[in-house]
This record gives sequence, structure tokens and C-alpha cells, in this order.
Amino acid sequence: MRANIQRIQDHIETIGRYTATPGEGTTRLSYSEEDRLARAYIKQQMSRYGLAVREDAVGNIYGRLEGTLPGAPAVIVGSHFDSVPNGGSFDGPAGVVTGLEVAALFQEQQLVPAYPLEVIAMIEEEGSRFGGGVLGSRMIAGQVTAAQLAEMKDGNGISAAEAMAMLGFHAEKAADALRTAKDTKAFIELHIEQGPVLENAGEDVGLVDTIVGMTEIRVTIEGKAGHAGTTPMPGRADALAAAVTVIHQLPDLALQEQDDTVLTVGKLSVYPNGANVIPSRVVFTVDIRSKNNQTIQRILKDVHNLVDSVARDGITCDIADLLYMEPVHLSANIHAVLVENSRKLGLKYRDMVSGAGHDAMIFAGFTDVGLVFVPSRGGISHTPAEWTDYEHLQKGIELVFKTIVQLTEATV
Amino acid sequence: MRANIQRIQDHIETIGRYTATPGEGTTRLSYSEEDRLARAYIKQQMSRYGLAVREDAVGNIYGRLEGTLPGAPAVIVGSHFDSVPNGGSFDGPAGVVTGLEVAALFQEQQLVPAYPLEVIAMIEEEGSRFGGGVLGSRMIAGQVTAAQLAEMKDGNGISAAEAMAMLGFHAEKAADALRTAKDTKAFIELHIEQGPVLENAGEDVGLVDTIVGMTEIRVTIEGKAGHAGTTPMPGRADALAAAVTVIHQLPDLALQEQDDTVLTVGKLSVYPNGANVIPSRVVFTVDIRSKNNQTIQRILKDVHNLVDSVARDGITCDIADLLYMEPVHLSANIHAVLVENSRKLGLKYRDMVSGAGHDAMIFAGFTDVGLVFVPSRGGISHTPAEWTDYEHLQKGIELVFKTIVQLTEATV
Repeated sequence: MRANIQRIQDHIETIGRYTATPGEGTTRLSYSEEDRLARAYIKQQMSRYGLAVREDAVGNIYGRLEGTLPGAPAVIVGSHFDSVPNGGSFDGPAGVVTGLEVAALFQEQQLVPAYPLEVIAMIEEEGSRFGGGVLGSRMIAGQVTAAQLAEMKDGNGISAAEAMAMLGFHAEKAADALRTAKDTKAFIELHIEQGPVLENAGEDVGLVDTIVGMTEIRVTIEGKAGHAGTTPMPGRADALAAAVTVIHQLPDLALQEQDDTVLTVGKLSVYPNGANVIPSRVVFTVDIRSKNNQTIQRILKDVHNLVDSVARDGITCDIADLLYMEPVHLSANIHAVLVENSRKLGLKYRDMVSGAGHDAMIFAGFTDVGLVFVPSRGGISHTPAEWTDYEHLQKGIELVFKTIVQLTEATV
Repeated sequence: MRANIQRIQDHIETIGRYTATPGEGTTRLSYSEEDRLARAYIKQQMSRYGLAVREDAVGNIYGRLEGTLPGAPAVIVGSHFDSVPNGGSFDGPAGVVTGLEVAALFQEQQLVPAYPLEVIAMIEEEGSRFGGGVLGSRMIAGQVTAAQLAEMKDGNGISAAEAMAMLGFHAEKAADALRTAKDTKAFIELHIEQGPVLENAGEDVGLVDTIVGMTEIRVTIEGKAGHAGTTPMPGRADALAAAVTVIHQLPDLALQEQDDTVLTVGKLSVYPNGANVIPSRVVFTVDIRSKNNQTIQRILKDVHNLVDSVARDGITCDIADLLYMEPVHLSANIHAVLVENSRKLGLKYRDMVSGAGHDAMIFAGFTDVGLVFVPSRGGISHTPAEWTDYEHLQKGIELVFKTIVQLTEATV
């Protein structure tokens, strides 16, 4: 029996309608009204497929099908249901819907798991409301304290703790959200690729074995403002001229590595940003990602050297470290099962490195994790045009379902 | 008898108090409440010094001392009294106060001009409200139609014509603001340098013989957005990477010329400007200024070639011309008088090229013009910290006064 493509489409489209920006993509920030409505729908569907529904103290949603082995750890399947502003309908929900469809198939086939099956829908993976990202899974991994939740603020100055309270959750009980190896046998996430590799290769699924290490730094270059017409070239301390001297050399630092390392300057702001004023300050980010930690370290050092090289009379530079995560290697055992099942299902697959962070990398800190990518049309994501064909979603879900049947040791 | 330093200071400080941003510099947009208050003060002072006050149809203020020669053309002295947002107290008002002090000295010394003396305070030189700049003098030169005034809009969608009407002026009668060689013998403007040259050289005044030609273009580079982690380096169409390839080569285009040409990229915006998103679009300005028109043409061509060179698969470029003004050469006769008078007054002076546009360059289209610079502390302008020592202002005003006595052929 195949996964039900109509049911998958209905779930994706319904969740996609809970957006603060109708007609302009999905905007569903954690603990917002749109979160509340999507949450109600997800809980309702979990119940419909025979799962026992609960929410943890911080708002992650679980639907659980008990197993026959007393006290056995659960196999968890799912992803997040928040979005970036004006994003698409698939980033996150594809994995949540995978969980719902796996539960539906268990119900239709009257499968009884030995290990419990849990479907999960997590909050705040994108960090669009409180910054940082993967907050739901980090709380599950015990990496966030109640005090930190009171400190994190959104753009309106509302803390994560306050936002949680508005939906009836309890930041002060964040520790209760903890999961460990003792109660978790494995975590399987399906996610859209958000890149062009699978589509370009005409493949069905990417079986992720590594999530890249990633670092983000913020470079601030300070110079001196001046009138564009009245300040001679020789005496200038032009912050933008200094910044571009650095930035134009950065892509080669990644290209010269032979290991698919990527480097991006995505955000750059010029002050005061007037056509006839010499820039006094430029702030830009550098995002570096690689499966090899040494490569990241080497490039970071080169970036520091390049930035230092433009500091001179009148120009000062500062580098702030915003993020540093080492590469995460996922479970070789589960990867092997995913490879075997892809072959059995006749899927075109490839081993992949994930260039984006996912909840899966946080779960990898305490349990065995498998991560399955499905193709993204045009390789794009985080826009209303984000798209994955439902046939591709169906194939990916069938792979996850087959794998979960094995991991839960389910029988009819 | 010397110019009255206390009177000069009082005028500057009083006009500076008419700001929309008290404590954060001077913000006095044309036809605003602050304009209305400053206008009332300027008119009152003109009357006090024995001038006959009138405002033209579009809001430029004149104070006139009749001459003894029937129907003779007037010698005009003054500048503008609008400001940039959060600017200083000297850019513009220094020249208006020069006019007031010249009138005060005429009154004190009971001077009778043969040619009429007119003090002028003009609106909208900065273009801070309606864009473009030198609007007051362009209307005086007959370069702006009533229809254009109805089209120009401020940030709130209010047209220049509507804004004028709110203060009782009449855009539909803009043609009445016209001045010509027939009624104007000369225009003398004193302005702060807005650059570091006089201060660095320890000089009192700059006698401008040329106002640079200037051009401003807007370059738009379009690429393709993508996830910073999931889009391999080789297939990227990174608009910022393309832009910096151009921009880092631009300063040398000006530096390799030996004629003090300046080039500035002051404004640059990145879209969507997210740390983990490959930039899809970058828009930046290039401002080029030179006393030699050929130099500007040569650099413009080089910029076009550089921009074209980054257009490739996935990257498209567009260049829009925002401004093009040829260099303006001021009156050699008046310059010679200013040199001679500087010597007589014992002032340290230098011949200068103005790198900024001024109302003087518009007047040069129909009458003889002299432009005198006084030092700017630190070379800065358009900030609350903009400063010129009152002693420097006093010396500059004395030079202008002496010159105007000669041009008006005034006698006791």
C-alpha cells in the first residue's frame, strides 16, 4: 500500500493556510495566532490517526502510539511547524506531515509497534521570532534554561517565556521537555533539500550522513564619514572601500577547498548610506559551512587575516562570533537502513551532506538519527515559491514509513 | 570696522534653534514649521538692518537696499536656509548670516550703494524634502516649471506645490521667481568648505574658481537568491559577490587621475539581506566629481565596462543615470577681486575647486558669481558636529563685505 498523496497534499495545504501573510507565503511565528491554529489542526489529525496527543511544557506537540514492549524507548518522527517570514509551505511541515502520514499508514495497516511510535511537531526551528534557531529541539535536548527563555526577546520586546505563557505553556518548566536516550530509540526527520542537487541529478531522495559544521561571524568596519565631493581621495577612511577589499576575496577561500565548503556574505549594511556621503561604517556577516571542521577553522583564520589587513590609519575592524557548530555525523546504522530501503523501493538516492542546520542535528546529541531530503524545485526555499512535488513527498514518506516500521519492530 | 562676531554668532545660534530634532542637530526641511519660524526671524532681521523685505512666489526671501543708479541690476549676497536631516548649523545659514551681516555693516557705516544690494535666503538647496537639490536657485534661473512642482513629492506624498501653498506661496506663479542678467549684476555666496583642505593648510578662506562637474549613477545587479548552506559555490549567482568585484576596483579609477577627481560608493543595499541567504539583488550608487569633464566621461566609461564584465549566466546588470552636471567656471573678474581683497585684509587664502554643488553654480548660468569657502572643523558637515569657528566666519564675511562694497560701488 502506498502513502496517500491526496492526504499528504491536504495536510500541506491546510497547514499552509495558517499564515499571517495570506497571498504572500507562509509567515507562522512560534506562539502566534497562526501557530495556535496550525497546532489545533495538527493535534486533531494526530488524534484522528489514533495517537495519544500531548504538548510538552514549551509547546512541542507529540502524538504517541504505545508499543508492546513495556518501558521501551520511542521512535520519533517529525519536524518543525514554524516558518520564516514570507516563507513556503514545505520547510518544516513536510516533516510534520510525514509523521502524520506514517501514523495514518500504521492505522490503515493496523500495525502494532513493539517500540512506541511518536510523531512530533516542533516550534521555533527557524529562529524567526527569537533568533538562534532549533529552539524546540534544543529544549528537548536540555540545552536551554528557563532563565534564558526569559531573556530571549522578539522584535516587540516580548520574551520567549511570555510568548509561551500566552499559549498556555510554561517556560519555568522547560526542564520537563527533556528527552534522553533512555526514552528515545531514534529520531527520523524528512525535510526538503532547500538546494538544487537532487533536482539537477533527477534523484528522489538524499540520505544525509553529515550535517555541515557552520559558523557565522559579524564583521564591523569603522571609518570616517565625509562629503563625497569635498574629501580628497588620499585622506579618506572609507569603510565600504575597506569592506569590499575583504569581501571580494572571500568566495575563493571556499572555492579553493575541494570539499564542497560554502561561504556566503548574505547581509551587509552601510552607514549612513547616503549617495554623497563616504561610508563611516559597514557591518556584514560571513557564513561558512563545511563537513570538515578543519576547513572551517582554516577559512576563519584567513578571514581574520584579511580583515586585519585593511585596518590602518582611520579604519578599525571588529569581528564578533555569532555561531559556531561543529559538523554532526548521523547514525551510520540508520543511514544503512535508509540506503537498503531506498533500493527496495526503487528510489533514486544519493548520500548527502546537509548544508543547512536541522532539528535532526540536535537530536543526534542523544539518540540515533536519520535525515531524508526530498527535492526542492529550483533549489529554492524560504520564499512563497518554495515547492516540492507531492509525488516526491510521497516517495520520501514511503521510505521513512518503511524504515520506521523496522525501527519500531511493528507487526500486524 | 570689523564684522560683529557676537551678532554673527547670535544669528547662527538662533537660526539653528529652528530644528525639528532639538538636541540631535538641525533638521529644517523646506516649507516646514521650522522653515516658517526661521523665515520669520530672517525677515525680521532684514527689516532691522534697513532692507525692504519680500518673498518671491516660491518662498525665496529677499531683503533689498535700493541703489542710487536708476534701474541698475542688483548685487545679491546669501545662501540657503534649509538643512539635511540631523545636519549642522552652518551649511547654508553661514551664507545667509553673511548677507545679514553685510546689511548690518552697510547700515552701521551708512553706506549708500549705487547698484542695489540684495540679501537672499533660499529654500531647498539640499533636496532633503523633494530630491534633486538647488531647487530655490533653479527656480530663480527659470529651470523649473509649475507642472514639475506639482509632480515632485516628499516622503509623505505631498507635492512641492502643495507644500508651498501651506506657507502661502504659489507654485503656479513659479515663473515670477525668475531673475536674469538684466536685474542681477552679481551673486556672492559664502559657504562652509565641508572638507578638510582649509583646516589642514591653516588657511582662512578658499576662493572658488570652479565647481566640479558631478555625475551620479545607480547600478543594479540582479542574481539569484539561494540558501547559504545548500547552494554549491559553483552554481551560484551571488549579486553581492558580483557587486564587490566591481566596487573594489572603483577607487583606483579616480586615484590614477592626477586632477583631484573623487569617486564614492556611498549607498549600497543588499536584498533580501539575510545572513543565510545568497543576495539576489544589490543596488549601489557611484558618485564621480571632477573639475575636468573628460575625466568624468573616461571614468564613467570604465565603470560601465567593469559592470558589464560581471554580467554572465544568472547575473544581469543595469545602470541608471541619476545626475549629470558639467563643471562650472565662476567669474574670473570676481575671483580676481576676491584675491586682491584677501591680500588687503591679510587673509591666508587659496584658490579652490568646490567638490560640492551650491546655489552659486546655478546663478553662474546667468550672472557673475563669486564663492568663498570658510574652514570646516575636521572637514565634516551634514552632522550635528559640523562646525566653523566664528573668527573664521568673521574673516570670510569681511572679505565678502569688502567685495560687495566694491561691486555695488557704495559710498558714504
